[in-house]
Amino acid sequence: MTERVVPHFQEELDRLKARLLEMGGLAEARVVAAVRALVERDAALAEPVLDGDAPLNQLHIDIDSRAFTLLALHQPMAVDLRAIVAALKINTDLERVGDLAVNIAEAARRCLRHPPVKELIDIPRMADLAEGMLRDALDAFVRRDTALAQAVLKRDDQLDALKNQVFRELLTYMLADPRTIEPSLELILISRHLERIGDHATNVAEEVIFMVSARDVRHQGGDAATDPTHGQG
Amino acid sequence: MTERVVPHFQEELDRLKARLLEMGGLAEARVVAAVRALVERDAALAEPVLDGDAPLNQLHIDIDSRAFTLLALHQPMAVDLRAIVAALKINTDLERVGDLAVNIAEAARRCLRHPPVKELIDIPRMADLAEGMLRDALDAFVRRDTALAQAVLKRDDQLDALKNQVFRELLTYMLADPRTIEPSLELILISRHLERIGDHATNVAEEVIFMVSARDVRHQGGDAATDPTHGQG
Repeated sequence: MTERVVPHFQEELDRLKARLLEMGGLAEARVVAAVRALVERDAALAEPVLDGDAPLNQLHIDIDSRAFTLLALHQPMAVDLRAIVAALKINTDLERVGDLAVNIAEAARRCLRHPPVKELIDIPRMADLAEGMLRDALDAFVRRDTALAQAVLKRDDQLDALKNQVFRELLTYMLADPRTIEPSLELILISRHLERIGDHATNVAEEVIFMVSARDVRHQGGDAATDPTHGQG
Repeated sequence: MTERVVPHFQEELDRLKARLLEMGGLAEARVVAAVRALVERDAALAEPVLDGDAPLNQLHIDIDSRAFTLLALHQPMAVDLRAIVAALKINTDLERVGDLAVNIAEAARRCLRHPPVKELIDIPRMADLAEGMLRDALDAFVRRDTALAQAVLKRDDQLDALKNQVFRELLTYMLADPRTIEPSLELILISRHLERIGDHATNVAEEVIFMVSARDVRHQGGDAATDPTHGQG
């Protein structure tokens, strides 16, 4: 199975990757804005997040469409096939990150109707961690860097620990003063949204490892499964 | 591009669909068990959900592997290509539903350490609704039934309304009696997990509509996008 259109394919694949990076950047910027609105107690900063997900949705459709075209016209094998399927899956993850930014912006807006519960330290830390994981996972995808992808997987535990810390701390405030219940609930939900952004970064990192090595690391319990297309290219 | 192996392809595609249905059934059974543990206040019912996601994970890997094989060996076009990409995406959705069942079981177990906050009515209703949406979305996939898929999309609003009702009602309890704060928090988180199961059912339904019609209904704001592979089969 020789593939005469390989150079053209690689160019198109590079364009697809560039679009995914662009989408990742957009999604991340929206998360940053939503968290900034919360931390700086400035609801106006949340407005663009609540209004403007059209560019992200457009990219989502465009990336899916490019991936389908590559599958249909080039019929790639092995690592190229896995790269395109990875792109399709990563595209879904990034769209969800964009949705989560909207969820955070909405919760931030509701939270800001109440006096501050406490100075926010762990939530911005969670946001930094999740954003960094997402950035690195996308870099790992573009550079086919499994070591970087593995490093992303390891950081998920930190995010989980912070989430539990946020929960315990806010619970203490809620039990001590019922006036903090409503804003604390919103903060807990925001911490869950940030945790899910980390989950999406983890998904991306797992996709990268599978793409490069055809090794399935998603269910670490058993033996790693291998992809039947491995070595057919 | 004539495809001599089409009958074989269709058989393999049918097997792939059967596996997805099996996975959907397993994921749903786990959600049912987790919610039953909560409603019947019987933590033992949650144990199998917390222990046993190996069969679901195995199916997840198997379905992905079958889809890759179909892409690599048969190089399908148009609706067949879209069906396999849909299967890959639905597979991810079902795996997440399985994860959410675990989240619900964990929250249920924590919740049962406290006296009941109230008789649970809306949460089992949310569970029924989400499970029904998921079942119908998978049936719509197997039968390529866009009308059924559209009906699933419409039910998401009901789930959203119930989620908001659960939140408001539990907030009232929390404000009135701090002893209800901890279990109420768990119930709110469970309602969010159920909402997300409905989101996954919605994703599946959208995939079905795209598969059949090559019409992208995921971002209803703009014009529906079309798939470039449409009509190439």
